[in-house]
Amino acid sequence: MSTRVTGPEIETLIQLLAKMPGLGPRSARRAALHLIKKKDQILRPLANAAAEAAEKVDECITCGNVDTANPCTICMDIKRDRNVIVVVEDVADLWALERAKAVNSLYHVLGGTLSPLDGIGPEDLNIDQLITRVAETPSNPEKPMEVILAVNATVEGQTTAHYITDKLEDLNVRITRLAHGVPVGGE
Amino acid sequence: MSTRVTGPEIETLIQLLAKMPGLGPRSARRAALHLIKKKDQILRPLANAAAEAAEKVDECITCGNVDTANPCTICMDIKRDRNVIVVVEDVADLWALERAKAVNSLYHVLGGTLSPLDGIGPEDLNIDQLITRVAETPSNPEKPMEVILAVNATVEGQTTAHYITDKLEDLNVRITRLAHGVPVGGE
Repeated sequence: MSTRVTGPEIETLIQLLAKMPGLGPRSARRAALHLIKKKDQILRPLANAAAEAAEKVDECITCGNVDTANPCTICMDIKRDRNVIVVVEDVADLWALERAKAVNSLYHVLGGTLSPLDGIGPEDLNIDQLITRVAETPSNPEKPMEVILAVNATVEGQTTAHYITDKLEDLNVRITRLAHGVPVGGE
Repeated sequence: MSTRVTGPEIETLIQLLAKMPGLGPRSARRAALHLIKKKDQILRPLANAAAEAAEKVDECITCGNVDTANPCTICMDIKRDRNVIVVVEDVADLWALERAKAVNSLYHVLGGTLSPLDGIGPEDLNIDQLITRVAETPSNPEKPMEVILAVNATVEGQTTAHYITDKLEDLNVRITRLAHGVPVGGE
């Protein structure tokens, strides 16, 4: 659509909306029109919410979750079992497990999986942080720490799980896998 | 998702995104996460574009199009045939016709169709403005004004077309319909 039809501000809005997952160029136009028509109910509040989120949201220094608190709300939740860390690939997996109320412990978000073909090595993921985090957790003689690898059942996911298992071998930690077939996100 | 998982700013963002056509609660969460991850590339620019659009966009006083200029870019375009007005139900229809480069004249956006069952009467649509607009256009003895009714082929669309035809009867104007089968939007 040329700028003959509408102003550059609307064009920019459409182009940005088209970059969101689930929206293409056509549905972005429809969404933009809807936003404009509901200027006070949606467009303005969305502008404010987006600005506020952009301002305040950060990656949790401990687990890699995204939150406006840092460390995040989950890491600060004293009611959780702090002796168990569920390792997930992506924040979306964390959110999915939380929605399913499947976990009442802490998390660690890797930020992806090892994938040599795509040039993604251990240094590109939050793996070192996980090792350090486990090593620095004070050991409880009665109950050793547990790391649950809730990665996807893909080749990359399983390679990543093996790599982490190797790295944690020398630490006093129990390593388990999430049962396959449990949905933890896209896979 | 409870506020235990993430901050209220992200919750608000998700809830607003879920109100857009094409996005449900699940895809809104996915979209929010994508926006947060691409904070500088998408989230912040989107906040700015939305704020700017909310600030500047308005309904064209002449034709009902939405634009940052008022009268809108199309109404001000001197290269268009100002003797022809294409009447559409919705701004989305106008944009669709523009994208198809099907029209090189002016428009009039009704903002819906007559629908007594839904309580939508002539006073709820931009019909009076259309009549006034046609009546006030200086007549050209060599070529009478033309109004093309590009409404959808629904019962409501056709009822609206009949009503407008009746209202324009006494004015020196040629009234035509868009050929059925031409896509002018959803119908």
